[in-house]
Amino acid sequence: MMHIEILINDTIITPPVRAAHSDVGALAEFTGFVRGEEAGRPISALVYEAYQPMAETVMRRLLTELAAAHPCNSVRVQHRIGIIRVGEAAIHIAVHAKHRAPAFALLAAFMDRLKQDVPIWKTDTFSA
Amino acid sequence: MMHIEILINDTIITPPVRAAHSDVGALAEFTGFVRGEEAGRPISALVYEAYQPMAETVMRRLLTELAAAHPCNSVRVQHRIGIIRVGEAAIHIAVHAKHRAPAFALLAAFMDRLKQDVPIWKTDTFSA
Repeated sequence: MMHIEILINDTIITPPVRAAHSDVGALAEFTGFVRGEEAGRPISALVYEAYQPMAETVMRRLLTELAAAHPCNSVRVQHRIGIIRVGEAAIHIAVHAKHRAPAFALLAAFMDRLKQDVPIWKTDTFSA
Repeated sequence: MMHIEILINDTIITPPVRAAHSDVGALAEFTGFVRGEEAGRPISALVYEAYQPMAETVMRRLLTELAAAHPCNSVRVQHRIGIIRVGEAAIHIAVHAKHRAPAFALLAAFMDRLKQDVPIWKTDTFSA
């Protein structure tokens, strides 16, 4: 049973890098930053909003589904909401697994599905 | 031109998570830990040795080759050598890119090639 932790709030805290226990050989992580342009226009920040209870429920269901194909020990998803400036992290995901292949596969598949399935959206941009 | 940094020594320092500049939207990281068993036998540590100048040269060549297919902004590889206890990190790789797809692809391909091409080897184990 994969441990799932989902945090949606106004900060991202990068957890210390360590193996959860002696059977964990791999930690795959992804951090997504706000870039200085959006659809070709320069921006200084994005505003993320979430329909929060639904976003957590959908992420948990998605991760559970993906874990059946790619068995991992734990996943921790942090998604910031609110104003996020260029260069700041909007999302951080950490996947612990025995081996790297399922960790990479789950991480990549989750990111692909996140934008289509999960009710988190960018509502506005500020031009630089 | 992708920036490449390779560090082979007796410590791993996880760099702070941040975008290198405003065009970087993705950071993909991998950490490999020593697990509590090796080939079915319990262990308490592994000893890594490297033929160091060659290891750095081969890694740099490999990363440059992979960057042609998967364009990224920078790669930082840290590989520990010496005695590494169970639960401790042996390798940490950080790839910064504009988008996540090339970052994931370069990271996974590098790990696949590392073990076959780079002269770093586990010389011994200590049973627990």
